[in-house]
Amino acid sequence: MFETAEVGNSISKEKYKKDVTALREELLETQKQLALSKCSTIIIIGGVEGAGKTETVNQLLEWIDARGVETHALDKPSDEEIERPYMWKFWRLIPPKGRMAILLGSWYTQPIVQKTFKEIKESDFQEHLEEIVSFESMLAKEGVILIKLWLHIKKDLLIKRMKKLENDPLQNWRISKNDWKFVKKYDKFREVSETALGKTNTKEAPWFVVEAEDFRYRNITVAKTIIGRLKDGIEEKKNESAPPLKPRKFEPPLNNIFTTLDYSKKIEEKEYEKKLPILQKKLYQSVQKMQKKDKSLILVFEGPDAAGKGGTIRRITGALNAKDYRVISVAAPTDEEKARPYLWRFWRHLPRKDKITIYDRSWYGRVLVEKIEGFCTDDEWKRAYSEIAQFEKELFDFGIIILKFYLSITPSEQLKRFKERQTTPYKQYKITEEDWRNRARFRSYEACAVEMFEKTSLPFAPWFVIPANDKNFARIEVLKTIIKEMKKNLK
Amino acid sequence: MFETAEVGNSISKEKYKKDVTALREELLETQKQLALSKCSTIIIIGGVEGAGKTETVNQLLEWIDARGVETHALDKPSDEEIERPYMWKFWRLIPPKGRMAILLGSWYTQPIVQKTFKEIKESDFQEHLEEIVSFESMLAKEGVILIKLWLHIKKDLLIKRMKKLENDPLQNWRISKNDWKFVKKYDKFREVSETALGKTNTKEAPWFVVEAEDFRYRNITVAKTIIGRLKDGIEEKKNESAPPLKPRKFEPPLNNIFTTLDYSKKIEEKEYEKKLPILQKKLYQSVQKMQKKDKSLILVFEGPDAAGKGGTIRRITGALNAKDYRVISVAAPTDEEKARPYLWRFWRHLPRKDKITIYDRSWYGRVLVEKIEGFCTDDEWKRAYSEIAQFEKELFDFGIIILKFYLSITPSEQLKRFKERQTTPYKQYKITEEDWRNRARFRSYEACAVEMFEKTSLPFAPWFVIPANDKNFARIEVLKTIIKEMKKNLK
Repeated sequence: MFETAEVGNSISKEKYKKDVTALREELLETQKQLALSKCSTIIIIGGVEGAGKTETVNQLLEWIDARGVETHALDKPSDEEIERPYMWKFWRLIPPKGRMAILLGSWYTQPIVQKTFKEIKESDFQEHLEEIVSFESMLAKEGVILIKLWLHIKKDLLIKRMKKLENDPLQNWRISKNDWKFVKKYDKFREVSETALGKTNTKEAPWFVVEAEDFRYRNITVAKTIIGRLKDGIEEKKNESAPPLKPRKFEPPLNNIFTTLDYSKKIEEKEYEKKLPILQKKLYQSVQKMQKKDKSLILVFEGPDAAGKGGTIRRITGALNAKDYRVISVAAPTDEEKARPYLWRFWRHLPRKDKITIYDRSWYGRVLVEKIEGFCTDDEWKRAYSEIAQFEKELFDFGIIILKFYLSITPSEQLKRFKERQTTPYKQYKITEEDWRNRARFRSYEACAVEMFEKTSLPFAPWFVIPANDKNFARIEVLKTIIKEMKKNLK
Repeated sequence: MFETAEVGNSISKEKYKKDVTALREELLETQKQLALSKCSTIIIIGGVEGAGKTETVNQLLEWIDARGVETHALDKPSDEEIERPYMWKFWRLIPPKGRMAILLGSWYTQPIVQKTFKEIKESDFQEHLEEIVSFESMLAKEGVILIKLWLHIKKDLLIKRMKKLENDPLQNWRISKNDWKFVKKYDKFREVSETALGKTNTKEAPWFVVEAEDFRYRNITVAKTIIGRLKDGIEEKKNESAPPLKPRKFEPPLNNIFTTLDYSKKIEEKEYEKKLPILQKKLYQSVQKMQKKDKSLILVFEGPDAAGKGGTIRRITGALNAKDYRVISVAAPTDEEKARPYLWRFWRHLPRKDKITIYDRSWYGRVLVEKIEGFCTDDEWKRAYSEIAQFEKELFDFGIIILKFYLSITPSEQLKRFKERQTTPYKQYKITEEDWRNRARFRSYEACAVEMFEKTSLPFAPWFVIPANDKNFARIEVLKTIIKEMKKNLK
């Protein structure tokens, strides 16, 4: 891949002067289009140390409206980053629609550097690259225009260039020991980079290798590439269909998990009162074990309105130290969340090591309510299954135990509870127009839930469908399941 | 203060049953009013360990709509918290308008505990309490209803209570060594708490001491107090005047800092080209020194449109490692920011240790553009001076160097630059309707700037007013000043 960037491209001072003026206008015009579009952009500036990455960024920031851009350089991770999956710190940097982020150092840096210095196995390296491919394809589909630039410079020229800087008393501070460390590893670095670029050179996120020796050629090429990618990306997004915003109907298969549930299961109050504290103590003990093992726990609760999610969650938190857990009730996204890829708002609240996050409704909203109400496009809910699986896999690989509960009640039981809520003053807040609307779509919800279990009940993130017509039974069942599953995971 | 909570208040089972129903309705109704109001609320549950703080919170979460509440318990600080001023982690928790946060452990915890265990001097303890008073008064004025509850329980009763729990095999996990550590220190803890509560028992944020022995009395009293505080707080806010949303006019004094500036100062291109790299290297070296001393730097840039802020900032960042700095261009706040106290959006982006944050416009917008355009009330911009001073003091005390630059140009020079921008295509983006509107208010801006310097140029956060009609001079002057001031601060 790099040979094409070793042909000695250069631009004369005069031509540069002339081209730059026009280029700046076009850059700014494109940036304006971006600001008005549904897209954001992430510009990755990669390449060997000393190829002039920082200089390129500084030049860009002079040419474009710097107020629309955030620049991020990779730094030693904070413990808040260390205590979350590797990609968390990059999710943090995703810019909102209309804005640009420039990354000096990206999700490529660690795998390439570690491979170059033989710190990871080939298989881990390859797996990492695969994760990157699906991550980038997701970003692209969510409207993040990825512009991946690789500044390349031949070894001998690089060395010449760095020596020159080093011998300039006013510039030598720009060269660090670290830079030389990379020069020594140039050949290996080049080989590893070429593999990485080749494998991640996808249609949605292609690489652009830029010959970096002549700074004029480098700057012009980088600017032109950015303009081209932005224009194409914005155009593509324009032609995408919008969500229908009217309900879709779905029919569950005649026989499905719900038809097999035994809703008659019951636990009498006396027995419940006896069992609850015993299970709560056991849960408390499993959490302590979990913390000793430096793992964390995510509990997801879904199910129709009035299925008893809140009450069940309170029986769980009743056994936890307040500092160890957070309950997140998923409501409408804020504008900061709406302006970013769908999963951003969930990455945002990921638990740190040793912690528990309980989601009262979750990222599965996309394949339930959003799918049914037509709040998302067909493409969006259809690709959500694999995106969610990828998301949960990253969490699991990091040592997070994920347990997903679906509390299921029958339509008649739901009606009974709705009516009770209407007649009990301090329960009325729980019953809204929306609940009645959803109730009318009960079967569509069942159909979507069935498909959801089918596609997202995975060994590392299983679904547990609990018949919840009897609250006591459901609560005890959920507590038992958590304890059992944690035991399994903490062996 | 605590005697009143040692009189043996209790409520019978029957009365409790009866009262709770009505109370839940009222709680929910009040919560609904809060959701529709311009207020948010922070409920602090304080008191000795073992007084039943967690139980109270769990009870509350069952009575109110838990989906509108976030509970936060104090935990060992993360390094991202350690590397920022003490209050940063609490700013992070401020809920948006309409929502509740319940704090188990608050900004009172550390000072009270440290004082109890003799880890801080009396004077530091007192200073901390004073900071809390001004912090809380600011929150209150910004629409955060503070509800400070202190659960009190007599020593002998507390010990009885804990022993009882400890002897219950199903409950003993609720009692930790730490709890006993506090019981041993009960008397000292009580004395210190009484001092802290007394000193912070303000009109805007009064304390409510609740006798906690009888859980029924405790729960009822807590709920009633919350209802009362919320109703009053929401009512008060309703009667507050809204921002005028039309421009205010201000006249600068005949003689002021601007009339004393020498705008004729100039640096020729040749000399500039010679000086710039020398100063950039010096700046780079001061930053390294700063990092060795574990300090950080905040640079604030204000000044009329076209004063050259962006260009000056680029000459600074040109001397920095990309990973060491962030440039934050202050634009319109997001809805997450609008929903919180004014300074929240600036706390949000505070630099970590060893880092540099450069603000292209800043929190001073409140006493400049917002004051002039009528975007804030008189009360808001008038109290902003002391709130900002308090804010910058906290940063300074934490070891952040704060330098504030005002680049000043004459109206005629501004006009010249506006016209140039209009005729240079790649500069047109820099000139908008708004710039012309602001230009029409040039004198009002000068007047507000003069008052701003007068009220906020402080020894720990000085203003530097730079005549910027000549860009070269301004850039060199700013670089020189930064280097000089850093040297002073790093002695």
